Amino acid sequence: MSEPASHFQRFRIDVAYDGRRFDGWQSQPEGNTIQDHLQASATKICPGVATVQGSGRTDSGVSAAGQVAHFDVPGDWRMGPVEWQKALNANLPAAIRILNCEAVPADFHARFSAEGKCYVYRIETGDVLPPLLAGLAWHRRGFDPDGRLEEVARLFEGTHDFRSFSANRNDGKDESRDTIRVISSVTVDREEADSIKIGFCGNGFLYKMVRFLVGSAVYCIEGKFPPPEIIALLQGADRDRKAPFCAPADGLSLERVLYPPEFFPKP
Amino acid sequence: MSEPASHFQRFRIDVAYDGRRFDGWQSQPEGNTIQDHLQASATKICPGVATVQGSGRTDSGVSAAGQVAHFDVPGDWRMGPVEWQKALNANLPAAIRILNCEAVPADFHARFSAEGKCYVYRIETGDVLPPLLAGLAWHRRGFDPDGRLEEVARLFEGTHDFRSFSANRNDGKDESRDTIRVISSVTVDREEADSIKIGFCGNGFLYKMVRFLVGSAVYCIEGKFPPPEIIALLQGADRDRKAPFCAPADGLSLERVLYPPEFFPKP
Repeated sequence: MSEPASHFQRFRIDVAYDGRRFDGWQSQPEGNTIQDHLQASATKICPGVATVQGSGRTDSGVSAAGQVAHFDVPGDWRMGPVEWQKALNANLPAAIRILNCEAVPADFHARFSAEGKCYVYRIETGDVLPPLLAGLAWHRRGFDPDGRLEEVARLFEGTHDFRSFSANRNDGKDESRDTIRVISSVTVDREEADSIKIGFCGNGFLYKMVRFLVGSAVYCIEGKFPPPEIIALLQGADRDRKAPFCAPADGLSLERVLYPPEFFPKP
Repeated sequence: MSEPASHFQRFRIDVAYDGRRFDGWQSQPEGNTIQDHLQASATKICPGVATVQGSGRTDSGVSAAGQVAHFDVPGDWRMGPVEWQKALNANLPAAIRILNCEAVPADFHARFSAEGKCYVYRIETGDVLPPLLAGLAWHRRGFDPDGRLEEVARLFEGTHDFRSFSANRNDGKDESRDTIRVISSVTVDREEADSIKIGFCGNGFLYKMVRFLVGSAVYCIEGKFPPPEIIALLQGADRDRKAPFCAPADGLSLERVLYPPEFFPKP
């Protein structure tokens, strides 16, 4: 007698996408979201596959270099992770790619196991936004922070109540939600001419939080939102006041989702 | 009495575009070409503007970092090049950008004054084509020329009859056309991991010529098109035989158009 098959096998997928082509991550009736395309491809390959679960939503226009999701396949469905990666990519639009696929234990969960995330926000400062970057960067002609971006970034790092730096999702959960987050690092990369890439890593991010932080940093450097006001809002001085500006979705990309090392031991 | 205005002022524009979004350069009845968008924008700004004339066509799917065109404006229309650049960009889709605009003498012609062009062709060799490069590169998983690309490139350089490395345009001009061209340089850039960028500069390129040369180089390295056969075709051994493979439009970008220095003296 052969060993009984387990009821299902869970797979983790690492997903990159061009956010310009889709209506965000979250499944919608119209169906042109990342989750919808992943679900349709997985179901086409294996009709019994369970819902594709992401680490979190990304908004319309937001791209990803390292989104993570998982899905469950009936235990008697014999397909390994390399086959799944190839089959999914063969069925997905070219603007969504599975970068990696691996079999994971059933207690791994793309959303609930996540310990943190890293985002990058791109600002382009040249006279003309290059056409290939249209929709992938916030165009702020002539913006020159001249070292002050690093100073503002220091204000964001650490543990704060980021309620004032987030938008309501209008899903009824906002009043009671926990809005304390830890930002472990904010980095500024100016290696490419006319490009500013601001990296955020933290244990979690509220809805539109990175975009509010970027908007606040730019307004601060432009003199419209002085550091003491930023500090006051980060200290929860006025829970009903919002930061004055939310940067556009265009420049945002989800770079990495962080999980406990026990799930993915280094070889 | 004031000096009489000249009948028209000619402007040169340097244009970049994301070829994925348009049906090529050349005007079409449907209207979603680069030339159509430029013409519509220029005409909206100045109804009397004459036809926007490019240095040459680019095919559907081909991008440009430095296409050049000119257009003529009635002599009494008082708008300088900087205003033209801003006004055109304000009216164009973000995937087409005017990088530069300057007033030029009436004997400058974007097409007939051109002395040469430079193209870049991009091949991506990684397991998965990153979504942001979908449509911008030819994906050849695992292709590793290992130095041989430079050797094949040497065969293309110089003066040859490139008839076998071009497609017919079906415009009735093919039988009598001059198919001799000079390729001044072919360069191979492997600075980015998993990327191969092949640069071609020459006095002119036939229809689909760069794509036939790239396809021939890849076939040569894969053993399907030996160097003696390439050399024989370049020497005009069989004018009716075509090179065996034309690389896809995706990887091609027009980088520069070269003009005599008398038109654009260095400051």
